Amino acid sequence: MRPTFDSLEQDAAAGNGLLDRRLFLSGSVGAALVMGGITPNAAGSEPLRVEPWMKVPGSPFIGYGQPSRFEDKVVRAIPAPPNPATQGVGPARTPLHLLDGMITPSGLHFERSHSGIPDIDPDRHRLVIHGLVRRPLVFTLEALSRYPMQSRIAFIECGGNSAALNAPLAQPLGMAAIHGLLGCSEWTGVRLSTLLDEAGVEPSARWLIAEGADSAAVSRSIPLAKAMDDALVCLYQNGERVRPSNGYPVRLLLPGFEGIMNVKWLRRIKLVNEPAMTKDETSKYTILLKDEKAWQFVLPMEVKSIITRPAPGLMLKGPGFYQISGLAWSGNGSIRQVDVSADGGRSWAPAALQDPILPKAPVRFRAVWQWNGGPAILQSRATDDTGMVQPTRAQFAAERGLRGVYHYNAIASWRIDEKGEATNFYA
Amino acid sequence: MRPTFDSLEQDAAAGNGLLDRRLFLSGSVGAALVMGGITPNAAGSEPLRVEPWMKVPGSPFIGYGQPSRFEDKVVRAIPAPPNPATQGVGPARTPLHLLDGMITPSGLHFERSHSGIPDIDPDRHRLVIHGLVRRPLVFTLEALSRYPMQSRIAFIECGGNSAALNAPLAQPLGMAAIHGLLGCSEWTGVRLSTLLDEAGVEPSARWLIAEGADSAAVSRSIPLAKAMDDALVCLYQNGERVRPSNGYPVRLLLPGFEGIMNVKWLRRIKLVNEPAMTKDETSKYTILLKDEKAWQFVLPMEVKSIITRPAPGLMLKGPGFYQISGLAWSGNGSIRQVDVSADGGRSWAPAALQDPILPKAPVRFRAVWQWNGGPAILQSRATDDTGMVQPTRAQFAAERGLRGVYHYNAIASWRIDEKGEATNFYA
Repeated sequence: MRPTFDSLEQDAAAGNGLLDRRLFLSGSVGAALVMGGITPNAAGSEPLRVEPWMKVPGSPFIGYGQPSRFEDKVVRAIPAPPNPATQGVGPARTPLHLLDGMITPSGLHFERSHSGIPDIDPDRHRLVIHGLVRRPLVFTLEALSRYPMQSRIAFIECGGNSAALNAPLAQPLGMAAIHGLLGCSEWTGVRLSTLLDEAGVEPSARWLIAEGADSAAVSRSIPLAKAMDDALVCLYQNGERVRPSNGYPVRLLLPGFEGIMNVKWLRRIKLVNEPAMTKDETSKYTILLKDEKAWQFVLPMEVKSIITRPAPGLMLKGPGFYQISGLAWSGNGSIRQVDVSADGGRSWAPAALQDPILPKAPVRFRAVWQWNGGPAILQSRATDDTGMVQPTRAQFAAERGLRGVYHYNAIASWRIDEKGEATNFYA
Repeated sequence: MRPTFDSLEQDAAAGNGLLDRRLFLSGSVGAALVMGGITPNAAGSEPLRVEPWMKVPGSPFIGYGQPSRFEDKVVRAIPAPPNPATQGVGPARTPLHLLDGMITPSGLHFERSHSGIPDIDPDRHRLVIHGLVRRPLVFTLEALSRYPMQSRIAFIECGGNSAALNAPLAQPLGMAAIHGLLGCSEWTGVRLSTLLDEAGVEPSARWLIAEGADSAAVSRSIPLAKAMDDALVCLYQNGERVRPSNGYPVRLLLPGFEGIMNVKWLRRIKLVNEPAMTKDETSKYTILLKDEKAWQFVLPMEVKSIITRPAPGLMLKGPGFYQISGLAWSGNGSIRQVDVSADGGRSWAPAALQDPILPKAPVRFRAVWQWNGGPAILQSRATDDTGMVQPTRAQFAAERGLRGVYHYNAIASWRIDEKGEATNFYA
């Protein structure tokens, strides 16, 4: 006889069906994890059904592979352009609810472009380092390729991610529309400090301006300390050359800093002694507070987490066991803990965190949830190793107000109804 | 005045120009790393050249992104089929010399197929677990998706990788042709032990047979201990659903074990009490020794490393500084050390290893090399945390002979000539 749900009651870790995270570690709980109710069908006797694809030779090799044709709905969400002339201006968002793991496939990594994707010839592209340096330098791609490189797995999050949750009433939006301005790649490139050492930074330099080769010439001011700390001039994304929508042939990576500062199509680094106050850091990308003042140059993305499954559009198929899965990250360091709630924050259970836990990289967290078929409000709450805890929406509103559209990192909620449908919700 | 090469002599770590790996750590050597000779052109005065792509809006968003058109030569190497009827039989090899980092982009992950790529409808596909179990089970994809999952970054290497180095004379082959049956992804799926626990393995079971849903029905016998240890039934590869050429919609991952055992298009797990002696583990995938005996069921891929750059086809452009970069891995554990030689193994310098160093995952290693323009023989030698050291070709030949075509893991050499060209070479 199958174990029933009751046999797992000993493993309850929080209210409304959240089970102990040790269930992820084989053999570490008394009973093996037998999840009655997921696999109702016992196998019939042999022979197994032979499907049509086993009766004919498969397709031949191709040089550059693509996803299955059955996955053609797994694409970035692209809003209809308000004007055909500006169809490359705006965001393309990652469908995080259809993904798992830590890496974002490069074809689905979100994109925020300010004047479309430039078609850059890598043989003609140059990176210039000038301004307050002893030796202004021009780098070809080939020259950059000869320098010692470094790889790191890092998230990039648009400063405007999750801004939809600033709306006074919860909007009927899905995963990508709310949280899809987040991606993670293994980035490989030359340390910016190596190139700056070669150019010889003048003692008076305090900032640098990074400029892209798109026709918007996106420009941001970056503290020199960050450039010398962990900035990378990236040539590779997930093993291959950086994708066009993510800055081909060379982009800047400022681990943890808001997305736009990781300047794509990088063409210029100019050393200066004060911020340039470019259009991209004055009219936008400042943090508007409730008293109509604004924070400027608050650059790391704060500790945050989101539940990617269940999520709107992914129906639960009846009561029983489900995995709650999501991502947590912090621009200030490493994730230390993620807690999950199924009752809107009244009780919390620690989630299992997937190794490796890397600084300024997303961590996949998971919890086992026994859904009883009733309403539930799912939340996740991340804590990073600086001790920062993701605030509730009320705490966030009390500190900053809800008029800004950048750096929204409050706890988000999905409400599950009796039909098993998830919707955006303010708990 | 620029520092000259001589100023770095204090950092020599081995013969023929290998420098200290601490050069990878900013600020950890006395002098900053100033690599005179790479960037001969000082920047001109402003304004910078404005390229044509800065003068027009860029291209609009697309749902699923692709590499730049300028990278259209970066594809898998596919041998011409001997017979049009068998065009999906054989290997498609990863162009490792054109990549960097640890992750292989899914579109370039090597593929070894025995009857082409089946076009599997995920809604119809089933995974059956039967044989010596108490409850035979049939899993739909949807059912598998509800179980607790795990992610891990792992290499997969075909048992036949690098077999070209068994030839008596070094063949004029490139990176992909010799070593391109290696890839690495972040794999996500359900622990096989979870599913086996649910089916209830009978005490008499010792092995299991994994079978694919391709028309070759690739089948391999797997020790039960491995299945219970770290096997994953994978639904995701680098964040998205597994690619067709790598087993869509579900493949087995046996971390560290020879490639074919990571059965693609997984349709069946049958618990048995002894190996099945399938065609895929008798006529092939055994290790032929020099005395005409063979090792069978030697399953983990042994410690190994390869230099991916410099490599054939990538010309060095004159004397000066270069990065030597490559990958090291072991199916038995984690990489502990990689040494690099520029003089054919007479002297060795430890390479810098890229964090994170994960078990049964490739590690990117790097060294700085000051090429003097003369001939050089580049080698790498990996050591894993079980103490296994990659053998020389002579040691490998003395132990196993060179008649087999599987599990070749000896130290490989690239010879650099005075023109800067790399060729396959036996040191």
